Amino acid sequence: MPTIADIDAAAHRLQGHACRTPLLSSPFLNEIAGRRVFVKAECLQHTGSFKFRGAWSALSALDPAIRAKGVIAFSSGNHAQGVALAAKQHGAPAVIIMPADAPRLKIANTRALGAEVVLYDRATEDRDAIGARLASERGLTLIKPYDNDMVIAGQATTGLEIVEQAAEQGIKDADVLVCCGGGGLTSGIALALDARGQNLRARPVEPAGFDDVTRSLVSGQHERNAALSGSICDAIVTPTPGQITLPIMKRLCGPGIVVTDDEALHAIALAWLRLKIVLEPGGAVSLAAALFHGEQISSTDVICVVSGGNVDPDIFARALATLAED
Amino acid sequence: MPTIADIDAAAHRLQGHACRTPLLSSPFLNEIAGRRVFVKAECLQHTGSFKFRGAWSALSALDPAIRAKGVIAFSSGNHAQGVALAAKQHGAPAVIIMPADAPRLKIANTRALGAEVVLYDRATEDRDAIGARLASERGLTLIKPYDNDMVIAGQATTGLEIVEQAAEQGIKDADVLVCCGGGGLTSGIALALDARGQNLRARPVEPAGFDDVTRSLVSGQHERNAALSGSICDAIVTPTPGQITLPIMKRLCGPGIVVTDDEALHAIALAWLRLKIVLEPGGAVSLAAALFHGEQISSTDVICVVSGGNVDPDIFARALATLAED
Repeated sequence: MPTIADIDAAAHRLQGHACRTPLLSSPFLNEIAGRRVFVKAECLQHTGSFKFRGAWSALSALDPAIRAKGVIAFSSGNHAQGVALAAKQHGAPAVIIMPADAPRLKIANTRALGAEVVLYDRATEDRDAIGARLASERGLTLIKPYDNDMVIAGQATTGLEIVEQAAEQGIKDADVLVCCGGGGLTSGIALALDARGQNLRARPVEPAGFDDVTRSLVSGQHERNAALSGSICDAIVTPTPGQITLPIMKRLCGPGIVVTDDEALHAIALAWLRLKIVLEPGGAVSLAAALFHGEQISSTDVICVVSGGNVDPDIFARALATLAED
Repeated sequence: MPTIADIDAAAHRLQGHACRTPLLSSPFLNEIAGRRVFVKAECLQHTGSFKFRGAWSALSALDPAIRAKGVIAFSSGNHAQGVALAAKQHGAPAVIIMPADAPRLKIANTRALGAEVVLYDRATEDRDAIGARLASERGLTLIKPYDNDMVIAGQATTGLEIVEQAAEQGIKDADVLVCCGGGGLTSGIALALDARGQNLRARPVEPAGFDDVTRSLVSGQHERNAALSGSICDAIVTPTPGQITLPIMKRLCGPGIVVTDDEALHAIALAWLRLKIVLEPGGAVSLAAALFHGEQISSTDVICVVSGGNVDPDIFARALATLAED
């Protein structure tokens, strides 16, 4: 588990490399939510999601000789792009293992960020075996998406910024809603708020049907989702909470909140209309919770970490269509 | 003409009220432009455009007794919303004169921000006469959109932030491209860069057919556009440069750049894809100039002020459709 000293050190390493994303607001969103809503816009982070923070933190913490041999990651999404860009900027090779049927744009983007993309067939090949072989042959270091102390420390820098920005905006008491997959961002923010954010409390938000963290916080043990796919919130669909992240969330987080895919789409549309930011469904569930599940929130203000904006045009068009129904 | 002391005073008044918008970048945009591109995202400002800065600056500079009587503005767009919100937050009444055929959403937004909207018929009524009568009857102060020193000083705070952010990012030499209508934002930024921004130079960008500032900078006198409408970049379509703004731009700005409506749409799409921000056509012309008219730029880096994001869904869908052609 990373300490607050690890998080401060990560913040120091990220300085001048990660974007200090703004805390946005709109009187129109306050009106819908019935309280002040602040939005920490991590979709504006490099590569379009918070994942760059954790990737940079992990890469920059490696021994330079180890880093020079290269890193490897499994991801078809935001973690892939975060690791690829962080590796490129460190002058280190990056290998990203992606399913051959991943969207072409994601494969092209990851390659354009300088990574070597190794494709595998989901039906016939074992990606872990491929990764282990490459790592061993080339001496690559595996960068896990959330069960890694330095990755969590990197994501936690979002929480340090929230503490500063909440003070600037006069926010005295707020639930901090976080889009939650494996729990790297949620647990990192929870650690930062615990150390520095008086009266700020992290809470995970998940899509309906994929609420493993919410249920795990209730039962106290690792719960699993029944399915591995089936939500448009693909970026935060994970089978079960992380080994490092769940104990942190159990100790520090408030109860989870669950939203529907339609609520996520509506939140994307309202973020487009009122905040002028682009969200993907998995990056919008925190805002959806603030706007449509206010009865589960008791704080004066609410802060939503919107965590990614890498959305397909078709899904985005569906989201904007919800405005016509308003 | 505002002095740098006026601009510093405006920055002080705006502190904690305006959003310090981020300076964004993407390696994909750098690749297209052939140089580093930085984007000052004023679409993330309150009410979705830089206009809030000037409105707040002007309102906050008024004598409190005068301000309490109220303010009045003519606008169907971004200036209307900026004045409405700034007045609401000052507890001052605001009257906004809008054409009766303005988009319903804009009328609704301006009302929702607390302003009294007075509609007039463009064909049969004289808006200046209506405004003069209301101003005189109620003692309202007129807030002009750009020919007002305190408004220009407010817009200029964008330039002060650019100077700080350029230093943070190691930008040594850059043209600062500004979406230009009447010239309030462009002249304000030019003043700030002249006082503080060594090797940063403001340049106006306009839509084809509405390049009155570009031509005025060449001829040295007020040139007019042949038409008053006919570009999707409606937010920056003005008949001729301002009386206060043109002399400033003549003294301090580099040559103008002109882009087509299609280039503006393509820039909107790339900003959506690569930066996760929402732009309106008139707010995207600066980015279009950097991406598609690089041959007119000689600086090492380029900074684009993207100035607004209040776009209709139909126009936005047209913009995203340009991605399919890439």
